[in-house]
Amino acid sequence: MYVEKILNAESVAVVGASRNETKRGYQAIKTLLDEKYEGAIYPVNPKEKKIMGFTCYKKVSEIPEPVDIALITTPASTITRVLEDCAAKGVFGAVIIAGGFGEIGHEGKKRADEMIEVANRNNIRIIGPNTSGMMNMNQNMNLVGIRDVPKGDIALLSQSGNMALTLITEAKIKSLKGFSYYVGVGNESDIKFHEYLEFFHKDPNTKTILMYVEGMRDGRKFLQQAYKTTKDKPIVLLKSGRSLTGKKAAGSHTGALAGMSEVARSAFERAGIIVTESSDSLFPIAETLSSLPPIKNNNVAILADGGGHATIAADLLSDLGVNFPELTEKTQEKLKKILPFSATVNNPVDVAGGTDADPTVFADCADIILKDPNVGGLLIVGLFGGYGIRFAESLSLMEEDAAHRMGKLVRKRKKPIVLHSLFSSEKPHSLHLLRYYNIPVYDSLDIASKCMGALAQYGNYLKSYHAKTNFVLNWGAKTKDKGKKIIENVRKEGRCALLENEAKCLLKLHGMPVSKDKLATTADQAVKIAEKLNQPVALKIVSPDILHKSDAKGVKLNLSTEEQIREAYDTIIENARIYDPEADIRGVIVSPMAEEGVEVIIGTKIDDQFGPVIMCGLGGILVEIIKDVSFRVLPISPTSAKKMIEDIKSVPVLNGVRGNPARDKKALKRLLIMCSDLIESYPEIEEMDLNPVLVHEKGVSIVDARIILKPE
Amino acid sequence: MYVEKILNAESVAVVGASRNETKRGYQAIKTLLDEKYEGAIYPVNPKEKKIMGFTCYKKVSEIPEPVDIALITTPASTITRVLEDCAAKGVFGAVIIAGGFGEIGHEGKKRADEMIEVANRNNIRIIGPNTSGMMNMNQNMNLVGIRDVPKGDIALLSQSGNMALTLITEAKIKSLKGFSYYVGVGNESDIKFHEYLEFFHKDPNTKTILMYVEGMRDGRKFLQQAYKTTKDKPIVLLKSGRSLTGKKAAGSHTGALAGMSEVARSAFERAGIIVTESSDSLFPIAETLSSLPPIKNNNVAILADGGGHATIAADLLSDLGVNFPELTEKTQEKLKKILPFSATVNNPVDVAGGTDADPTVFADCADIILKDPNVGGLLIVGLFGGYGIRFAESLSLMEEDAAHRMGKLVRKRKKPIVLHSLFSSEKPHSLHLLRYYNIPVYDSLDIASKCMGALAQYGNYLKSYHAKTNFVLNWGAKTKDKGKKIIENVRKEGRCALLENEAKCLLKLHGMPVSKDKLATTADQAVKIAEKLNQPVALKIVSPDILHKSDAKGVKLNLSTEEQIREAYDTIIENARIYDPEADIRGVIVSPMAEEGVEVIIGTKIDDQFGPVIMCGLGGILVEIIKDVSFRVLPISPTSAKKMIEDIKSVPVLNGVRGNPARDKKALKRLLIMCSDLIESYPEIEEMDLNPVLVHEKGVSIVDARIILKPE
Repeated sequence: MYVEKILNAESVAVVGASRNETKRGYQAIKTLLDEKYEGAIYPVNPKEKKIMGFTCYKKVSEIPEPVDIALITTPASTITRVLEDCAAKGVFGAVIIAGGFGEIGHEGKKRADEMIEVANRNNIRIIGPNTSGMMNMNQNMNLVGIRDVPKGDIALLSQSGNMALTLITEAKIKSLKGFSYYVGVGNESDIKFHEYLEFFHKDPNTKTILMYVEGMRDGRKFLQQAYKTTKDKPIVLLKSGRSLTGKKAAGSHTGALAGMSEVARSAFERAGIIVTESSDSLFPIAETLSSLPPIKNNNVAILADGGGHATIAADLLSDLGVNFPELTEKTQEKLKKILPFSATVNNPVDVAGGTDADPTVFADCADIILKDPNVGGLLIVGLFGGYGIRFAESLSLMEEDAAHRMGKLVRKRKKPIVLHSLFSSEKPHSLHLLRYYNIPVYDSLDIASKCMGALAQYGNYLKSYHAKTNFVLNWGAKTKDKGKKIIENVRKEGRCALLENEAKCLLKLHGMPVSKDKLATTADQAVKIAEKLNQPVALKIVSPDILHKSDAKGVKLNLSTEEQIREAYDTIIENARIYDPEADIRGVIVSPMAEEGVEVIIGTKIDDQFGPVIMCGLGGILVEIIKDVSFRVLPISPTSAKKMIEDIKSVPVLNGVRGNPARDKKALKRLLIMCSDLIESYPEIEEMDLNPVLVHEKGVSIVDARIILKPE
Repeated sequence: MYVEKILNAESVAVVGASRNETKRGYQAIKTLLDEKYEGAIYPVNPKEKKIMGFTCYKKVSEIPEPVDIALITTPASTITRVLEDCAAKGVFGAVIIAGGFGEIGHEGKKRADEMIEVANRNNIRIIGPNTSGMMNMNQNMNLVGIRDVPKGDIALLSQSGNMALTLITEAKIKSLKGFSYYVGVGNESDIKFHEYLEFFHKDPNTKTILMYVEGMRDGRKFLQQAYKTTKDKPIVLLKSGRSLTGKKAAGSHTGALAGMSEVARSAFERAGIIVTESSDSLFPIAETLSSLPPIKNNNVAILADGGGHATIAADLLSDLGVNFPELTEKTQEKLKKILPFSATVNNPVDVAGGTDADPTVFADCADIILKDPNVGGLLIVGLFGGYGIRFAESLSLMEEDAAHRMGKLVRKRKKPIVLHSLFSSEKPHSLHLLRYYNIPVYDSLDIASKCMGALAQYGNYLKSYHAKTNFVLNWGAKTKDKGKKIIENVRKEGRCALLENEAKCLLKLHGMPVSKDKLATTADQAVKIAEKLNQPVALKIVSPDILHKSDAKGVKLNLSTEEQIREAYDTIIENARIYDPEADIRGVIVSPMAEEGVEVIIGTKIDDQFGPVIMCGLGGILVEIIKDVSFRVLPISPTSAKKMIEDIKSVPVLNGVRGNPARDKKALKRLLIMCSDLIESYPEIEEMDLNPVLVHEKGVSIVDARIILKPE
């Protein structure tokens, strides 16, 4: 596998090697030396003879030994030339630092295309460009120039060198954890996120994957790979650029288009990824997930030596959707026995001074609480680690004893403990011990709570895993000949938009409940159709030139008598002619007036990063003003469709409110799945709007439909 | 002023003084000694003769010298006895550590009442109980036992000793700032939040007030005092207990009831308080506000040496509602001259390596950017402070030079700079210099952004200050005799709920637009009233025993003919009899069917902490399901009423959507103010519901009204 080969290269040519300390071409060689890279290093620079004791070559192709990869630190304009030279030497991977490609607009894109053409022709795979480099910590290959990177089991994928530096520094200062690999993904011009992820999934040295993303070139492939990965290894991800201004900054940075943030978040979470919006908690969450078992039942207990911290932690965990179970009576009885009278023995447990003279009571409490079948994990907040510092030195030894016991407890009970300590920065030995036992320690309540929340979220995901679909589209699978013909006909006429009757025909063909419409081309026909329907009808104009029928006054509702229908027909045709004298008028649709129901809107579109997505919300102001909708990346499973409906905030309306009956949510769920199938069957469709769909007490009906094809 | 006298006491008796290191009675004396308290210390303990060289007294009343205050560390059961003894000595203040009062339920409340009775009788004012103590840093009076507390200009008010310890530790480790006073507010049994605040407002040593609150006993007085204070000094506040579980923990901690979190937040913010929900950013925001001028125009520029940090910071600031102005062409031109070609010279500014060889370029950029009239403040993110550490030591001196220049720049331009540095924890001298110049430095992007957001928020508030009301209620000011009589009559009948016609009468009396209803007691009367109205009518049952008219099938709408009205009248009376055979039926209201309009709900209630509050939202599911409402503490000004309407998410519905006309928001605003006046005029009202109110193209009308009085 090429990613594995590149990340485990046994020899590196540094193109643009330098003797100037501030240059990348110096730092890279210095770091490879300092960190004791196990492979061969070849500086390349036509102007130098020797660099740090190494012979310096004029070109890569002049190097006498085999060369696996090249670190290219020269400017964008030189890249194609350097790559051709690398090819002559049989180099199979290149790490390209220079910016000035896709991220700077048209000219840069052209340059990127040329680069990729050269690379493809010569079987060279590229990391970057516009990357800070990459590291393989097991082999001491550090092409980034950040020193003293701690080794560990977290693989880091970042689209920003600064963020990588931030995360590495954090690991170094505040944790015992470290990294297996780092890849600066850069512009993803060649190797993409999912390709790195595929390797990390298999890599035995990697337990957790940590990602900073600004935009993705192929979000769908990434989701597919993430879906496979998260059943074995957790992924933690921060996606920036969710604000408009943020988008601007991301645009100028990596040239990747940031997608709709709602789509991104729901897609990532559906693939089992832990998404965070706080850069402060990104590394801690990865640290926690690579240290501890996930929480199996979404239930957390809090153990505190003071009400303030307990109250804040409870707020934070509640916000994250974590439950606080009541402790069993047995647990409460046991706690009462070892804590003072004034202690709170229900969740959150407040020891009320009960640990002041003997902090090993923390371990006693933890033991009792973790035994409780209602409790899936324990968050300890307050002063632990600081009793020796604050009160009396003799207490330090007790804290260390407690740390040993709590460490073993986690292993025994297979339930996680996360600890918040005000004294973390004072580095007491007891907290070091906890970390040694894989109990993470934070001096921030926010972060400790978010880590606990992540353990619960990952646990919830693993339990629900098998119910999910895997983002694999099976284009064309259920395509029908008649459907193909409808689309062909639209294309033949040079149109992109299907007429309402064409759209409904296509939907009906795939079993969707559309209204029993017929096209009338005369008022007489309209009357006859209405007579057959034998109920009040609606009339709507049909013309490829009139997309917005209401704007053209081309809709008349609730028509019962022959007179009303004739008049409506004539008025609609007249209005259409006034609206657009050139319009190609195909006639008027006659539909039965729909039975009463709750209005729902279903839409699909092609997202830049994630491909086809579906949206659903309750009609009218709820969608238009409150933006109360839920999104999913297609395809969706029945479970996913059901969850999608429940994610709509105004869903209680479907359950029946204010004396109204409950509506048929199952029929709506089925319709969403049919939409998913339809979009999968006709990749030509760019956008589809079913608006409104009426959800009745029994069944649903599609009142209006709009389908737009991709431009040919 | 008693708060000032107590916080500046010149002599302290420590009741419960001890020789045991783990006891509070030891730690307090030790700390007073270590910190060099300028006043006199008198240990009190009947069992000891000498403690740390001091004579130990049996009782406070035995101390031969005058005693200002007593720190009482003995259990709850001893307090009244100790207070009586203190009184004999003329002590005027007591700091009571013990818990076991209001926070533990009925028995504790009784104990608290007894304590307050003794204190009042003897003119002793109490801090606490259930407090960690208090400190006056100017006088080295430290009754808490936390050592090395940094001195400074931040006054700290906290309802949790642990949170105080957290904040003090943070200040000590990460900042040059410190505290003027600390008060552990505890249960607020006697002295309340607003009394401390009043003193800090006047105190020349205090520049900023930092608060951790779980619940307030008199929120309204606090708001009034906060409103006065924030025009001179910023207040930063974290209120915990917003989750249900959080409430439970807060309840057992201080015995204070936590109020509705939406009400609290909107009330605090209207009084100019900076509210945060992140305990991590609480001290940093206070530090920033006490260091820097607020931002005058809500406009912030970002200066970054890497895209990743810039993108995340932009996301965070956008979330906080801060604007990113375009930089002027002049500014961009000037930046282009000093930065490399690949730099981004619009906001966020990315130097793209332009500072690598010379970090003084940061100061050059800051100078150019702060000169831009569009820019109100500057957030610098990235590696500043670490160039010397990471690249070459020689760069450190340049960073120090840049720090001096940026420090002076802030003073000159009177615009704030906040800095994020990845290298903050490495403590480079350049970052120390920045702090010396009052430029705060954080290693967290989250926190740096929140601090910048707080400067913008406080600046926005100061600009809008004069438009606001001041929470001073003028009970009964506009009471009308006729209104009083309506209420007296309800009371006379032993009711709490006004009948619909009574409620509407009261509203009409105060100029509110109620429908032209009349009460009919026979079908004939109903017909006559309808004839006069000369439009379709609604009939509604009137009975003190039927509060929910629809449940009793007591409402009939859209009645036009005499026949319809007669039938409706009889049916309503019959239904009411079936619903409650004992019901006291007063007749039927005849109302004209209301003109079409957007449904709005207005409600008022008495909040436990903040007194009368008003709520407004759009009718139907928007209020019931989406909970899309806005809250204000009464009274409200026109500006505040306007803002209240704009805070409703679905407000675009009133502006006219989907072809509907714009509605009369001004009339709605006037109605909200009238409601405010009404509640102010009749303090007997506990709850009022105007539901629905119809907002027309011109004017509003109240269709139904419910008023409930406080229990007598």
